[in-house]
Amino acid sequence: MSATVWLNGRLRDIADAQIAPNDRGFLLADGLFETIRVANGQTPHLARHLARLEEGCAILRLPAPDRRLLAQAISDLLHATKLSDGSLRLTVTRGTGPRGLVPPAMPHPTVLIQTTASTMTVSAPVRLGLSRYRRDGASPLARVKSLASLPSVMSRMEAIAAGMEDALLLGMTGAVAEASAANILFLREGRLHTPPVHDGALPGTSRARLLEGGFCTECSLLPQDLKTLTGAWLVNALSLTAVSGIDAHGLSLHEELDRQLREFLFSV
Amino acid sequence: MSATVWLNGRLRDIADAQIAPNDRGFLLADGLFETIRVANGQTPHLARHLARLEEGCAILRLPAPDRRLLAQAISDLLHATKLSDGSLRLTVTRGTGPRGLVPPAMPHPTVLIQTTASTMTVSAPVRLGLSRYRRDGASPLARVKSLASLPSVMSRMEAIAAGMEDALLLGMTGAVAEASAANILFLREGRLHTPPVHDGALPGTSRARLLEGGFCTECSLLPQDLKTLTGAWLVNALSLTAVSGIDAHGLSLHEELDRQLREFLFSV
Repeated sequence: MSATVWLNGRLRDIADAQIAPNDRGFLLADGLFETIRVANGQTPHLARHLARLEEGCAILRLPAPDRRLLAQAISDLLHATKLSDGSLRLTVTRGTGPRGLVPPAMPHPTVLIQTTASTMTVSAPVRLGLSRYRRDGASPLARVKSLASLPSVMSRMEAIAAGMEDALLLGMTGAVAEASAANILFLREGRLHTPPVHDGALPGTSRARLLEGGFCTECSLLPQDLKTLTGAWLVNALSLTAVSGIDAHGLSLHEELDRQLREFLFSV
Repeated sequence: MSATVWLNGRLRDIADAQIAPNDRGFLLADGLFETIRVANGQTPHLARHLARLEEGCAILRLPAPDRRLLAQAISDLLHATKLSDGSLRLTVTRGTGPRGLVPPAMPHPTVLIQTTASTMTVSAPVRLGLSRYRRDGASPLARVKSLASLPSVMSRMEAIAAGMEDALLLGMTGAVAEASAANILFLREGRLHTPPVHDGALPGTSRARLLEGGFCTECSLLPQDLKTLTGAWLVNALSLTAVSGIDAHGLSLHEELDRQLREFLFSV
């Protein structure tokens, strides 16, 4: 990550940007985050991320940071870091508090914005392994990109240890939910689908754009139907990645469809 | 919390004890913790907590901090803070890392120990409300006191907003799992039981002591059977609290049994 971050109102060198040990984000994962693509020094889908952040804050009963303040902070940080292409991570926690689960009556949220430079490269196709970790689509938190990401970390680590690149998690309904940090798109009988939120899929921003653009529709996918797929992709705010196989089932690559999806998602 | 904490090898004033913004505990809840009772300046059940911490580190594939180093750190911190009665919180994270879920090959864990003074008072009986948040007893993380505590925070906040004192969470099996930060003991036909781990109960240290001491046995509890209970308690490392009701079902108090449990758990 870059050496300059934005923390609680101002730009700082990362060495001076420190989180208090009694921050509820650190102690209890009491907060949420957004990962935002930066292209040519711009954040073309910022409004979508800030809207989801506000929805998440409402679910967490956390006062949402002012949207204009966040937009200005991001602008200042991009200017200071001269970041052209890469990503921003925007983290909001309920701030510090006394011991225990009950939050202070008047929380002072911690707001942190970090940048990571990257060149937008196309990743090689990935193989997925079905994970023993599951997503609870019935939980109000299933719609929130919360700080409680340890199940995602563990599912990714286990997939890598098993020789795969990523994990495919089921929801509590028994249907496919998503990968460890991306939604899944799947191709069946020439049509593109993605699992519904109630199966445990996070309502990702790229997923929403693809649905709105008519590229795919919501459809549940049961593990026993994985063999009927002819193709699949992982998609999140930063990337589209072709899937070459799920467990023992190999999938074809679809170069023309891949190009069209990539063009739609990331040309602006 | 006290003004002195132990962080990564030494005692510090809390104002100088800062967590890096790219600590994976803060960004991803990639870590775990223990809450340890302090009585008369001693930690009578420390070995049990350190054993559970090591089991949790193994599940997280995280190198466990040296047990003697932790015991010495706790001793030093109790000496420095002159804490006689209260609690310690021991937090271990996977330390800092680059952007994303994949941990560094050689993590440098963050270890934080904080104290909170308290007088050991008996809490008034509490009313519980059945929560819409659930615990996945089948997840390997169900056995770990992980930093991903946001569902617990949310369930407690919602219970309080509904006029209750705490939430009772079900597991994915549909049976009762535990409260937001405590195991539940329930009395039925004169016998004391507690839900099994596969129903979503965290293997709490006081729960383990009660099971080993023959005070209770493991037994599943379905929501429709709550009306058959005659009494209940919440129990964790720090406290035993009588339950006066669960949703609309009122429960009797049992002073003699309460006294026996409290004597067993907290006289040493």
